[in-house]
Amino acid sequence: MRSLLLVTSAALLIGAAPPKKLLTPNDIVAQSPASAWKTIPAEDLMVMDLANGGRIVVQLAPEFAPVHVANIRALARGNYWQGSTIYRVQENYVAQWGQNESDKPWPAGVTPKPPAEYTRTLKGLKITPLGSPDAYAPNAGFADGWPVAYSAKEGWADLAHCYSSVGVGRDLSPDTGTGGELYAVIGNAPRQLDRNIALVGRVVDGIDRLSTLPRGTEALGFYKDKAQNVPIASIKMASDMPTSERPSYEYLNTDTATFAAYLRVRANRHDDFYIRPAGGVDLCNVQVPVRKKA
Amino acid sequence: MRSLLLVTSAALLIGAAPPKKLLTPNDIVAQSPASAWKTIPAEDLMVMDLANGGRIVVQLAPEFAPVHVANIRALARGNYWQGSTIYRVQENYVAQWGQNESDKPWPAGVTPKPPAEYTRTLKGLKITPLGSPDAYAPNAGFADGWPVAYSAKEGWADLAHCYSSVGVGRDLSPDTGTGGELYAVIGNAPRQLDRNIALVGRVVDGIDRLSTLPRGTEALGFYKDKAQNVPIASIKMASDMPTSERPSYEYLNTDTATFAAYLRVRANRHDDFYIRPAGGVDLCNVQVPVRKKA
Repeated sequence: MRSLLLVTSAALLIGAAPPKKLLTPNDIVAQSPASAWKTIPAEDLMVMDLANGGRIVVQLAPEFAPVHVANIRALARGNYWQGSTIYRVQENYVAQWGQNESDKPWPAGVTPKPPAEYTRTLKGLKITPLGSPDAYAPNAGFADGWPVAYSAKEGWADLAHCYSSVGVGRDLSPDTGTGGELYAVIGNAPRQLDRNIALVGRVVDGIDRLSTLPRGTEALGFYKDKAQNVPIASIKMASDMPTSERPSYEYLNTDTATFAAYLRVRANRHDDFYIRPAGGVDLCNVQVPVRKKA
Repeated sequence: MRSLLLVTSAALLIGAAPPKKLLTPNDIVAQSPASAWKTIPAEDLMVMDLANGGRIVVQLAPEFAPVHVANIRALARGNYWQGSTIYRVQENYVAQWGQNESDKPWPAGVTPKPPAEYTRTLKGLKITPLGSPDAYAPNAGFADGWPVAYSAKEGWADLAHCYSSVGVGRDLSPDTGTGGELYAVIGNAPRQLDRNIALVGRVVDGIDRLSTLPRGTEALGFYKDKAQNVPIASIKMASDMPTSERPSYEYLNTDTATFAAYLRVRANRHDDFYIRPAGGVDLCNVQVPVRKKA
């Protein structure tokens, strides 16, 4: 693309007719057919409303962490998070919420000691390869809308820790966390956590309600004064809300020609602003498109 | 490391004496000798004070963008930014500030059309290789405290766009920006900008003053209402401040055994929390340590 773009610049300089505008990733999303999108099932949408009026919506990934996701659904239905807060916000890292320092009993349906759902078998996943090298795993790509790291040779796969990923807080191993405390990534992808902790999904709406919170001044970003904790009004599964009140979202199917074009342009930005396309892209810089449905 | 850590867990389970704690990246920094650190020259420190009392300190990189950095020093000395604001904050991307839509004349010493300082020659840089693959360039590593992408074969190098990197806003090429408008990265490393725009440094203190700002609701995160713009009280070079008022910072010399150990542990987290070290690390996830001097 480089020589074409040098020609483009020269053409502009000599006042020639402007060349055809090259597509941006957003253009590709805007022009995509409806058939390239998949609706997120209501039973996979966790809706967290803050007391300050902000809403954060999380898409859960039962295909990667089924027991932890089942726990989260049971915790939401059992109203476990009543009175809970966002109590930790660490700069360039995570925001964390839930029942911290609580001995509240588990609601029905919660598995108190889930298995370590940090990887799964590659079998059963339809992978679209990233096509660029990855520093953290032998292979990287996308499966059913999720960014995944994997080993084609060893047969495992895991959700990658990208901006907005949601995971389960845990103590030292052998603890695997229950789901009662969750975190969302609000900084540069902390991929070192991959395969060390259960990822259960990603924030699909309202991430700025977390990323703009004041950073905690205690070690690891915990708020020093509990009065700084941000109260959570409710956490519900969309499937438990009245149909008329349910929010709905769809994501770009990563197994489509549209996503392949989007991925190609993400790795080769060649619209007007760019001079030198990289010819590669990082897994977490692809950002699978998700949008709200009317 | 994997089997050692499984032994560690087993030892804890059966109540044996706790094994020696393995070092974290922070431990390595805490135990580092004073000789492993380099003081940032006062003429490379840009001190931005917001009207709300917040301070943001930027380390400039004259070895990568000498003309743009000279411009920034001249703009600060010429009080060019008086009355300017932070006017753009885009979620998971950048915060941008300066004289936007201004026809204020350039102070003495400003080069209105700098060269495109998007890459430099590799020659003269002492590189510590990352040791992991990079999706954006043939090679990656560290030079004089900076994360750099480079081509050993072709002989070029560039500063990498990581969290907290500071660059120069520009219009479409052939514009290269002057330095009158600057941005800082407040999201996942937007490495696609590498070699397409002049990076001039990084925020070394106060990044949370930018990352917690409300996101702009116009396209590209511009604030819709100018009343939302965040007023800047002053931007000064530390070298132009009275000695008693100058802040001072030092960074971990990337050409030391301490940094080599830090890099190794960043790629192989094996402290108590981790179960599976990745065996690799992304360039922007290494985060060269910088700290304030007394």
